[in-house]
Amino acid sequence: MLNFTLDAKTDGETILKGLRSIFQEQGMVESVHSWQDHGFLATYTSRNGSFASLRIYPHGLVLLDFQGYDSDAQAQGEIASLLNSVERRMEELSQDGAGRVKRLPPVLRGGAVDRYWPTADGRLVEYDIDKVVYDEDSPYQNIKILHSKQFGNILILSGDVNLAESDLAYTQAIMGSGKEDYAGKEVLILGGGDGGVLHEIVKLKPKMVTMVEIDHMVIQACKRHMRQTCGDVLDHLQGDGYQVLVEDCIPVLKRYAREGKEFDYVINDLTAVPISTCPQEDSTWEFLRLILDLSMKVLKPDGKYFTQGNCVNMTDALSLYEEQLGHLYCPVDFSKEVVCVPSYFELWVFYTVWKKANP
Amino acid sequence: MLNFTLDAKTDGETILKGLRSIFQEQGMVESVHSWQDHGFLATYTSRNGSFASLRIYPHGLVLLDFQGYDSDAQAQGEIASLLNSVERRMEELSQDGAGRVKRLPPVLRGGAVDRYWPTADGRLVEYDIDKVVYDEDSPYQNIKILHSKQFGNILILSGDVNLAESDLAYTQAIMGSGKEDYAGKEVLILGGGDGGVLHEIVKLKPKMVTMVEIDHMVIQACKRHMRQTCGDVLDHLQGDGYQVLVEDCIPVLKRYAREGKEFDYVINDLTAVPISTCPQEDSTWEFLRLILDLSMKVLKPDGKYFTQGNCVNMTDALSLYEEQLGHLYCPVDFSKEVVCVPSYFELWVFYTVWKKANP
Repeated sequence: MLNFTLDAKTDGETILKGLRSIFQEQGMVESVHSWQDHGFLATYTSRNGSFASLRIYPHGLVLLDFQGYDSDAQAQGEIASLLNSVERRMEELSQDGAGRVKRLPPVLRGGAVDRYWPTADGRLVEYDIDKVVYDEDSPYQNIKILHSKQFGNILILSGDVNLAESDLAYTQAIMGSGKEDYAGKEVLILGGGDGGVLHEIVKLKPKMVTMVEIDHMVIQACKRHMRQTCGDVLDHLQGDGYQVLVEDCIPVLKRYAREGKEFDYVINDLTAVPISTCPQEDSTWEFLRLILDLSMKVLKPDGKYFTQGNCVNMTDALSLYEEQLGHLYCPVDFSKEVVCVPSYFELWVFYTVWKKANP
Repeated sequence: MLNFTLDAKTDGETILKGLRSIFQEQGMVESVHSWQDHGFLATYTSRNGSFASLRIYPHGLVLLDFQGYDSDAQAQGEIASLLNSVERRMEELSQDGAGRVKRLPPVLRGGAVDRYWPTADGRLVEYDIDKVVYDEDSPYQNIKILHSKQFGNILILSGDVNLAESDLAYTQAIMGSGKEDYAGKEVLILGGGDGGVLHEIVKLKPKMVTMVEIDHMVIQACKRHMRQTCGDVLDHLQGDGYQVLVEDCIPVLKRYAREGKEFDYVINDLTAVPISTCPQEDSTWEFLRLILDLSMKVLKPDGKYFTQGNCVNMTDALSLYEEQLGHLYCPVDFSKEVVCVPSYFELWVFYTVWKKANP
């Protein structure tokens, strides 16, 4: 992709005439569509199946796209040289109104490795992914683990970047950013199938950590491919001071609430898009509120509830979440913190929620 | 951009016939180019100047691009609905070999605000930039300050993202990550026109900090628009315990070396692509080595030199840099640290260099 933003109005025909020879010298065949008021579209096809589209808008914008298939180094060099020629020619053509030029890195489409995982706020970002480590559908979601040169393996659940091996910052944030004393405490983790939270908490000698993860395939995949995150903590479903329940957390929470079991900490590390086997929750917000309500029920009066919120740019979603906190069965207070999680490419909001003391 | 990767070989003609009506129903005019061995390219132009290109490769890859100009919400809705129709139709057409579908966020081209600032390792990333705060050419470089919703203002020098107001992590890393005691020390900062390092160091009560920045326009722009980074430290070129020299650092370093002036810390915060008024340095590496050599000359025997290196993925460039460290006038040791700088979208390597003790 090559963009030219000219200061002056474009004489489209001059630009078209000026550029066409560059393509024709490459043996590309031109086909032109012109509009009365909207400029020109020229497409240039080459015999090897590659093509360029040149869109000349009348108000000074010229966009060139080049598309090739399975480009080796030589082909890439030829494309670069063609784009260089276009840049030089455009400079000559727009002498009296030199504008801005922008060449964007190529978008790699349809390959075995997908490098594009848009952010929560919808931006296009390319990851340095070089290998598909794992790609399976569980009964609940699609599970991908992709390798990034800089971030290590990245867990992607149903297209959503969950956690990379580089993302200790996420795990620390959802544990209260190092300000809590977990020694001798009762801890409940909802979700957390990558094992990151469990791995970090058991180091802190809690009395007992219970992790409730619905998707056994996530556990199996992370146990094998996210060792930097989970260590050996997922090798067995129970160990010194912890147990992993492979269950839907909703019935487990209900059972604990019924039994009067209480925790010092509840850490909600569920995926952003809720998955549950319970049919009665028909909207994301109802599901979130149900989880919150049940969590408050199993939380000691001085206990704390930690969770991740959303990207800091999703202000509406964050406000709606905070609104939900006002609709729980008991009054709560909350604080939030903005954290940079390396593999997210956006700042992330984490919440701490606690029960208001009785007046 | 919409990508379909089919499991089976594509019957290109069936797909073309199946999809064409979707475009024609929108009043778009078709023009088809077909290859003997390379499938089809269909372009669809609409009366309002927008167009789509549909490229059907024979081995199961179908790529659709839609380009429109100045899209309002209604136009965006229409585009989304057209892409939805194509997705549904493709599902019907590829029943026996359901493949992968990927729709990428739109690329915004040629607008007043450029949101695409590729990483050092050449990846395409979109920033949440919503405003051009400052855009001027100095005698040395183009200076842009762009506003990001999540990162605050971002300083971009000659197209290279230097620092955002969110990037205290950068400043802390290039100061030694909180492990140094600056109290009562002599400190030299090379570059650092954003004022971040100066601002953080003067808080630590050094004896004297000298900052040498060549580009007064960078200082002026950051003083005004990067307050989160520089505080009020750039409001005057000297203050309590610091001075700012608006000079090329090479002659300053040479003068200090000649005079025998020595520092406890030298912090090289120059831009990645060197700028200097000295004509004798004809390559980046020679320039880097000259800076290093001169810095070592003005460094106390037990002093430390801090600098940023490169993106962690640029392993060749990092190795070359480390090689240079073996070619200085005096033997040195070094350590490095990998740090996540929020606005970089890639992990960054920082170096500490010190003189080897005499045997």
